[in-house]
Amino acid sequence: MSSSVHQATCSAPVNIAVIKYWGKKDTTLILPTNDSLSVTLDQDHLRSVTTARADASFGSQDRLWLNGEEETIKADGRLRRCIDEMKKLRQAKESKDSNLPKLSEWAVHVCSENNFPTAAGLASSASGFAALIASLAALYELQPEVSSSELSRIARQGSGSACRSLFGGYVAWQGGEQSSGQDSLAVEVAPQSHWPELQALICVVSDAKKGTPSTAGMQRTVQTSPLLQHRIKEVVPDRMVKISEAIQKRDFDTFAEITMADSNNFHACCLDTAPPIFYMNDVSRAIVQLVEELNRANEADGKGKLVAYTYDAGPNAVLYAPKDNMPRILQTIRHYFPNADFDDTFDLLGKGVNASHRGAQEALSLPESLPSSFNANVIPVHEAGAVRRLIHTQVGDGPRVLERGAGKESLLNENGEPIRLQRAKRA
Amino acid sequence: MSSSVHQATCSAPVNIAVIKYWGKKDTTLILPTNDSLSVTLDQDHLRSVTTARADASFGSQDRLWLNGEEETIKADGRLRRCIDEMKKLRQAKESKDSNLPKLSEWAVHVCSENNFPTAAGLASSASGFAALIASLAALYELQPEVSSSELSRIARQGSGSACRSLFGGYVAWQGGEQSSGQDSLAVEVAPQSHWPELQALICVVSDAKKGTPSTAGMQRTVQTSPLLQHRIKEVVPDRMVKISEAIQKRDFDTFAEITMADSNNFHACCLDTAPPIFYMNDVSRAIVQLVEELNRANEADGKGKLVAYTYDAGPNAVLYAPKDNMPRILQTIRHYFPNADFDDTFDLLGKGVNASHRGAQEALSLPESLPSSFNANVIPVHEAGAVRRLIHTQVGDGPRVLERGAGKESLLNENGEPIRLQRAKRA
Repeated sequence: MSSSVHQATCSAPVNIAVIKYWGKKDTTLILPTNDSLSVTLDQDHLRSVTTARADASFGSQDRLWLNGEEETIKADGRLRRCIDEMKKLRQAKESKDSNLPKLSEWAVHVCSENNFPTAAGLASSASGFAALIASLAALYELQPEVSSSELSRIARQGSGSACRSLFGGYVAWQGGEQSSGQDSLAVEVAPQSHWPELQALICVVSDAKKGTPSTAGMQRTVQTSPLLQHRIKEVVPDRMVKISEAIQKRDFDTFAEITMADSNNFHACCLDTAPPIFYMNDVSRAIVQLVEELNRANEADGKGKLVAYTYDAGPNAVLYAPKDNMPRILQTIRHYFPNADFDDTFDLLGKGVNASHRGAQEALSLPESLPSSFNANVIPVHEAGAVRRLIHTQVGDGPRVLERGAGKESLLNENGEPIRLQRAKRA
Repeated sequence: MSSSVHQATCSAPVNIAVIKYWGKKDTTLILPTNDSLSVTLDQDHLRSVTTARADASFGSQDRLWLNGEEETIKADGRLRRCIDEMKKLRQAKESKDSNLPKLSEWAVHVCSENNFPTAAGLASSASGFAALIASLAALYELQPEVSSSELSRIARQGSGSACRSLFGGYVAWQGGEQSSGQDSLAVEVAPQSHWPELQALICVVSDAKKGTPSTAGMQRTVQTSPLLQHRIKEVVPDRMVKISEAIQKRDFDTFAEITMADSNNFHACCLDTAPPIFYMNDVSRAIVQLVEELNRANEADGKGKLVAYTYDAGPNAVLYAPKDNMPRILQTIRHYFPNADFDDTFDLLGKGVNASHRGAQEALSLPESLPSSFNANVIPVHEAGAVRRLIHTQVGDGPRVLERGAGKESLLNENGEPIRLQRAKRA
């Protein structure tokens, strides 16, 4: 493979909203009914990686592989729209500089992989579409002329929340007013460096039943929930202002209060849907209770909130907290929810950064640092594996260009086919 | 005992709201933030019975026993207020007719019992306060001059939803506008005889954890939930009108739709509270899913909704349906939730009206009458006892005067002490 191959490989992060996106006013353009705001998580731990290559030899058909499986690029589908929009931006660039190779006229091959298993219960569409857009932007050499916000507008048309994964740190998706969607895009509220102490603990909760897919669920809420309209008009606008201010001030107390309230408000609207949508289960509820009890104990000590929970369209909890609070949170969670697989990415247990702790059987004690007011019987110690896995991560940066040209990061072989697929064929 | 004793014994029914009461604008007078509407259940199955006696020999202190335990009548408490208001009405009557004995000047002894165990998870305060007011009204011979609505205004000050148990059939609690509470009372929407076919199946759900008491919970919602304000102003008024019309027309489809929507809307507001309040658990949610699936199957057959669920401040489901639908509902519930204790009050199993079916071990099949579109795998068959008990009942009448004077229905002995207590002393 030669580095003169027209190719780029990028990674993009996962983001978890603290002001939730739920409901579209335009399902084709993916225009949301309200603004939303998220924290970008560290790509060192969770990421999608995508290689995009343009080549005259590829013929007329764009192709895309996701985790080794080829996806159909439907004529009226979201992948088609994203690739076409990116090609248009390249075309505009080529029309200004006739020396540039006409990449926009060639088909692309795209290969994308997530480093986290579907079983983790994390939506991969946000990081996936962000990595797709970032890799095409690098392939087409669109930046810095084309801003990340402009790219986010295109990513949005792939998967709404993907637009927020075009930035690191603290990111707002401005819903916009225009019916064209021209002003529906992501902006940076604050970079990662502004408040790098914020960490996240993802509690992957077992759930027998498959939840309502969010795409279908949110439109059912739009059509049937009287409360959603109030959320859109009255609740979210005020919270967007207040949580942005809290982020500017690194005011964790306010950040936590709004984050928890908005998670609950979102799930309340799901419950207010006909038929109702339930994402949180009894284990999710137990984590809420535990967090509330931890916060009560911390506040009784005059130290404000310890931790905030938020739940997306599933039973998993994402706990946000400043890093100094994390040891206490982790130990408490591991006490009440024993035997969770635990990736100790920050080496809190002192057994090495890469040490995984798979279903340790020992009964874990509560932190001694907990104030005596803490009620040890707030929830029962759950059965082993009620929380299946813990992922400890932190606020992270935006998409990274891992490689321009075809080198060791490439997910495509010299023929423009997935390397993983090639391996599978050989095996 | 002589029948010239000044005494009355009354029974009063339980009611289960279909438009929920949640939140007070005056916690002393118990003035609700919104109107509510309920169905009164049959006293033949669930009731509170109360004997009230006035006697010059009782001295100056009113006394009250509840299920054999004496309750303290606090000077600023709800019991005190109810008894005083009733005495005032008696006094007004006595002042117009000097021949009447001055019962209002004597102390009362009141003895109250519920025929359903606390373990049934049913709130007993509504039927209990209704029976208290009904028995004092009978003792003081207040009716028909004093209307049931006027009595409901007093019962309301004991326990808000008690006001609705002063009527049979379909009952609205009009929240009222006046700060005095003068216009906050119950009215009959339709009598039992208007739509006697409506039945109820109470599914008593096991729950390890003790929920937030409703008195404290509802005020936390008033203080912290932005969605509750929308519910109060926009959602409930419209639903009150529509469900009243549905009852007038015996339109079960609309009745069911609004009942389920309002249950979900109420629980959504609980979830929107800070900290959030959860009453429904995973078993409650599974019953919701099952009902939704039963309705989908019935609607696919062109027959409208089969059944409606509603949940109060706890995990128990109350299922409403026309009586013809009940065999299918019962069989389906008993299939998915095996081994529930079952009181077969309508002899659906043909083993006699008084036959109880305690934890039958047999695996029950699904009804053959279910359309083939019904998805038998909608929820898993649950572990034995996930639903602990089933109570099958129907719409019922209002409070009954069981006896005037002291006869076989009396709960007080000749000394004015609880008969149950007397038995306990002897034993």
